[in-house]
Amino acid sequence: MLKLYYAAHTCALATHIVLEEVGVDYSTVRIDFAKNEQRSPDYLKVNPKGRVPALITDRGILTETPAMLAFVAQSFPAANLAPLGDPFAFAQVQAFNSYLCSTLHVAHAHRMRGERWVDAGDAAAIAAMKRQVPQSVTACFELIERDMLQGPWVMGERYTICDAYLFTVAQWLEADGVEPARIPRVMDHRRRMSERAATCKAIAQELA
Amino acid sequence: MLKLYYAAHTCALATHIVLEEVGVDYSTVRIDFAKNEQRSPDYLKVNPKGRVPALITDRGILTETPAMLAFVAQSFPAANLAPLGDPFAFAQVQAFNSYLCSTLHVAHAHRMRGERWVDAGDAAAIAAMKRQVPQSVTACFELIERDMLQGPWVMGERYTICDAYLFTVAQWLEADGVEPARIPRVMDHRRRMSERAATCKAIAQELA
Repeated sequence: MLKLYYAAHTCALATHIVLEEVGVDYSTVRIDFAKNEQRSPDYLKVNPKGRVPALITDRGILTETPAMLAFVAQSFPAANLAPLGDPFAFAQVQAFNSYLCSTLHVAHAHRMRGERWVDAGDAAAIAAMKRQVPQSVTACFELIERDMLQGPWVMGERYTICDAYLFTVAQWLEADGVEPARIPRVMDHRRRMSERAATCKAIAQELA
Repeated sequence: MLKLYYAAHTCALATHIVLEEVGVDYSTVRIDFAKNEQRSPDYLKVNPKGRVPALITDRGILTETPAMLAFVAQSFPAANLAPLGDPFAFAQVQAFNSYLCSTLHVAHAHRMRGERWVDAGDAAAIAAMKRQVPQSVTACFELIERDMLQGPWVMGERYTICDAYLFTVAQWLEADGVEPARIPRVMDHRRRMSERAATCKAIAQELA
């Protein structure tokens, strides 16, 4: 059975939602960042990167949200969560997810995880990073609003794994200092996502 | 015909190499960062993110290296550049590529592109980021050396799109302050990659 390691309020929610969307049996393990469990010896055996999410499968362990999302879509093709038979359309899905992980999520991480990129003792540099987050994350969401979110779903008429991932990173936008009024289409997407049964179940489980 | 927009010494090289590996006809367009061509109105029509690479196909434009690499592998299955029929093995390929784009490349980018994450006028913060690059990029390569590079190729016996991508980011390691002696397996992989005909052709074309 699939087992998802997650922490609340992280990008693990995207994979959690798509596991609910496909309707597979799975279990979850909560990692408590407040106790630094992601750096515990036991968890580092699961994911030597010391991050969430990680997905245990009967073949081995997977990490990295874009890879895990595509894995779920490919493993449960009947759920129709990605255009699996069309390399160009599939690449568009992957390009969207890659942008979220390598640009938007990274911009966001400079608010709370600055010590990844400067000396942890350099309070001025860490503060400088935090100050830039509203601008850098807003730029990402404005690009999504204008050029990437086709509507009604990210890839157009069809719900895909991209929608679960966009909804997940859109959880953070107010705390990152993004003004919701600047991205009405993203906000409407977030509202519609929040009404899906799979989204509700995944969130309820994480916050239980 | 496929058309690749690239700049020399960037991650566009990974896609360039796999286009050579599959043996397809393609053309290239060089974007000159010294002239800020990636921000020109014409190029922003190609890629509104103002970055390279971008790949023009007969269906439309693709961006983001992991998406482009998987697209080439899926479009030319006879070249056998990814385990296309095996969702778990394909996810391992994608997880590797996702780590390179969202963690290693991002760590590297703090040396030259600090203004993405702090105010461009904050020289102290930009300098603080630069100082951390040897440590953060070394940590990435040590994880690859120890846990991710199966050998002889990234995914084991079989050459995949991951190899072209690892070779590409490994071009930057000395300039990033990584000590090659700490990552002998990565260095051996880079040497073997440099001897492949496809790699030689792609590099020669970019530097011509």
